[in-house]
Amino acid sequence: TLCRHTLSSLSATRRGLPKEKMSENGIMSRAKVLTIDTMNPTVKKVEYAVRGPIVQRAVELERELSEGMKKPFAEVIKANIGDAHAMGQQPITFFRQVLALCSYPELLSDSTFPEDAKSRACRILQSCGGNSMGSYSASQGIDSVRQDVARYIERRDGGVACDPDNIYLTTGASDGIVTMLKLLVCGEGTTRTGVMIPIPQYPLYSAALAELGAVQINYFLNEEKCWSLDITELQRAVNEARQYCNPRALCIINPGNPTGQVQSRQCIEDVIRFAAKERLFLMADEVYQDNVYAEGCQFHSFKKVLFEMGPEYAETVELASFHSTSKCYMGECGFRGGYMEIINMDDEVKDQLTKLLSVRLCPPVPGQALMDLVVNPPQPGEPSYGSFIKERTATLSALAEKAKLTEQVLNTVQGISCNPVQGAMYSFPRITIPEKAVKEATETGQQPDMFYCMKMLEETGICLVPGSGFGQKDGTYHFRMTILPPTDKLKILLNKVKEFHQRFTQQYS
Amino acid sequence: TLCRHTLSSLSATRRGLPKEKMSENGIMSRAKVLTIDTMNPTVKKVEYAVRGPIVQRAVELERELSEGMKKPFAEVIKANIGDAHAMGQQPITFFRQVLALCSYPELLSDSTFPEDAKSRACRILQSCGGNSMGSYSASQGIDSVRQDVARYIERRDGGVACDPDNIYLTTGASDGIVTMLKLLVCGEGTTRTGVMIPIPQYPLYSAALAELGAVQINYFLNEEKCWSLDITELQRAVNEARQYCNPRALCIINPGNPTGQVQSRQCIEDVIRFAAKERLFLMADEVYQDNVYAEGCQFHSFKKVLFEMGPEYAETVELASFHSTSKCYMGECGFRGGYMEIINMDDEVKDQLTKLLSVRLCPPVPGQALMDLVVNPPQPGEPSYGSFIKERTATLSALAEKAKLTEQVLNTVQGISCNPVQGAMYSFPRITIPEKAVKEATETGQQPDMFYCMKMLEETGICLVPGSGFGQKDGTYHFRMTILPPTDKLKILLNKVKEFHQRFTQQYS
Repeated sequence: TLCRHTLSSLSATRRGLPKEKMSENGIMSRAKVLTIDTMNPTVKKVEYAVRGPIVQRAVELERELSEGMKKPFAEVIKANIGDAHAMGQQPITFFRQVLALCSYPELLSDSTFPEDAKSRACRILQSCGGNSMGSYSASQGIDSVRQDVARYIERRDGGVACDPDNIYLTTGASDGIVTMLKLLVCGEGTTRTGVMIPIPQYPLYSAALAELGAVQINYFLNEEKCWSLDITELQRAVNEARQYCNPRALCIINPGNPTGQVQSRQCIEDVIRFAAKERLFLMADEVYQDNVYAEGCQFHSFKKVLFEMGPEYAETVELASFHSTSKCYMGECGFRGGYMEIINMDDEVKDQLTKLLSVRLCPPVPGQALMDLVVNPPQPGEPSYGSFIKERTATLSALAEKAKLTEQVLNTVQGISCNPVQGAMYSFPRITIPEKAVKEATETGQQPDMFYCMKMLEETGICLVPGSGFGQKDGTYHFRMTILPPTDKLKILLNKVKEFHQRFTQQYS
Repeated sequence: TLCRHTLSSLSATRRGLPKEKMSENGIMSRAKVLTIDTMNPTVKKVEYAVRGPIVQRAVELERELSEGMKKPFAEVIKANIGDAHAMGQQPITFFRQVLALCSYPELLSDSTFPEDAKSRACRILQSCGGNSMGSYSASQGIDSVRQDVARYIERRDGGVACDPDNIYLTTGASDGIVTMLKLLVCGEGTTRTGVMIPIPQYPLYSAALAELGAVQINYFLNEEKCWSLDITELQRAVNEARQYCNPRALCIINPGNPTGQVQSRQCIEDVIRFAAKERLFLMADEVYQDNVYAEGCQFHSFKKVLFEMGPEYAETVELASFHSTSKCYMGECGFRGGYMEIINMDDEVKDQLTKLLSVRLCPPVPGQALMDLVVNPPQPGEPSYGSFIKERTATLSALAEKAKLTEQVLNTVQGISCNPVQGAMYSFPRITIPEKAVKEATETGQQPDMFYCMKMLEETGICLVPGSGFGQKDGTYHFRMTILPPTDKLKILLNKVKEFHQRFTQQYS
């Protein structure tokens, strides 16, 4: 075929038709309209390591295994993504009962379903057009769900008021984050919007900024201090950035992804003061708000701290905070549910936001229903309360145990050093990669930690994401690994990582 | 408050602090970071009439009614949007049974569910990580669902081959359309990507093009010939456009939204030849493919016609076609399910597409499950086959009847002329608006048909979308009305429209 292709393009060139070529059956084949050279250049700049080349290879390996090909492992373990149910975490029974009832309301007369599940399903269906989850909702989300979200936030934040008008339901948290960034982008050259993001970051941020053509402003988390956030580093980053762009927003991920730190109340106050002083729109990614494990750590929402700082801040600092059904004890990623709360947003901009959302009609209604259940779970005295608490506690306790286990085992390995996993669902250990391996990686055009993770995948079947996909200080290497596998499996996995690291280190020493 | 605001900005100005102002309690209130003047200018250009000001007023009226306010009507009828279940259309029982089983697999042991629903649910769950719809799927969509889609397309298109690798599951069709447009946009000034869209169009297209900063190239459908598409008009449009942009794509909506026409096979062939000649990427919006009512009309997919035209076209013309769970006999809008099939796309661009989709992780899994059921419904011999066929036929027959009824009644009104509703879910009649009304509208800064529809809403509670929201020839006026209300309600609605039009005409004569 190579030869044939060469010939046909030759003959096309001879005829002076550079945009067309003759194929083997004598048909003029046109050059494509859409090619890598003529496609949207901002899309090309997008990178998303969590589902990048390493995951594609993992999928290939899975297929090869299923086709009976011999490998040094029996299964591929995808520890690359926070996909709880795929790792065996069980859904909350009450949530799924209500979803089944909403999907097929004939079940409302089935006596095996608890009454509180039925009444919850009725309430959701009554808020749907034609009492069907198949109807479009309002673009901002179902009214009653937004009211429930508002009440949840008030309870969570010790009574700080929340207006349902400030709640927007979203298609997962990602959708809300991208939408907010989209509103913020304007200007050209040195007036182009800059957005501050942590390094390491969750690569949705860098991907969205690349696609929007905004300027990514990196501020580095302090690995030595358990990935904490220093205001002096924020100040350095914003000062430097002002020379080449217009910094307009500051993104915080708390608890941290991929770094697992939980921010102190004091730190959040400092960040808010900094945002006010530097006139930055705050974006608080709080999707791991229930995933806090370390003793002495506690989740504080930016909204709550903002309001406790008094009207000087509470009435002025613009804040969007994000939550989702995908993480915490729910892990319902596939439903793509989420919400954002927006504080102190200009009214005209809010109208523009609502208009923008209306083009996509509405977030998926089953995801909205699920979000409603998350913010309004069974209450004491209701029939499902006991089992709900039991299931939630079991999941969160297991996660706390696995967070500890991961940190402990990884820290026994020479050349791996792992900060405490205070929260979220990942460890992000630092790894020492021998000079020889760095050299070999560089020669093959790979990041050294990509080289390391790819080798681990091929030898052990364990799929991790290299630190370079999240950003890290030059010369340091990391990987992100979820703590989600069941405890017994996680132990095996951690031991395999340990053995691999030792083997790899020896091989390249 | 006006006075207080003036004072505080005065005092702020006096202090030389134009960006801050003193609020009543003595607190310095900062100017907002994000304002209408500093937000993304392309977002401001987005318009989406289907959920525009008229719908916002309809929602207000509903609230006012529910608060006991007196109105000249008892209920608001939203005939503005193709939201079938909200208008009383019943979901397909089998689909909802499977969704309930997938949501709460404990029901698999419930003997009241038919066996085919159970086996279908098992098949879907087996394709989900951890057998849970709560897991992320592959970004391109669940493998087995994409295989089912491919087989559906092969059956639909009389055996023309379909490769599951060309199928991408989406969050409704809108998501797929926006993603494809995003890939196509590049260049600046006169080399900026231009995209041809029909006028009248479904305003997702104009909204997406505005947001992407692409050039909208209008080609006008021929109202006199039942909204048919003339190649000479396509040629005129592309020739003119080449002077100010780079036309790269041609969008077709068939069956038409808002115009209801069904394209002939010959016309589709002509369009494909035109696209090949002019080097345009074809985008075929075929979400109403089962909604064909008029005698002598038949749905032909662009894919099928393309392949029947032989390798000269089948191997070269780039095509993306879109389908959804939201329309046809399903009407499951809330689940946001859909797929696109991509033909002859450059391999490198395909990789970029997959990467871009991965940033948003995956389309909602319940919507994917539903899409699977749509493309793979109960088969003859299976327990649910009978009821499925009965329900589907009932819905489609009722729609056919309502399409006819709408056309007939509207054409009895002097000053309204309505083309046959050959397909889709809308009538788009032309209305005569008296000079005096046009003048009054213009004086109040409104489009005359917006003025007309707003008056109709206030007087009758009927919510329609003015033709100006879809585009129309200058000096002509239309509205879009869904044919979805139940037949008896539709009759009342059509009579109210008739009476209103007569009253309005009289009032402004």
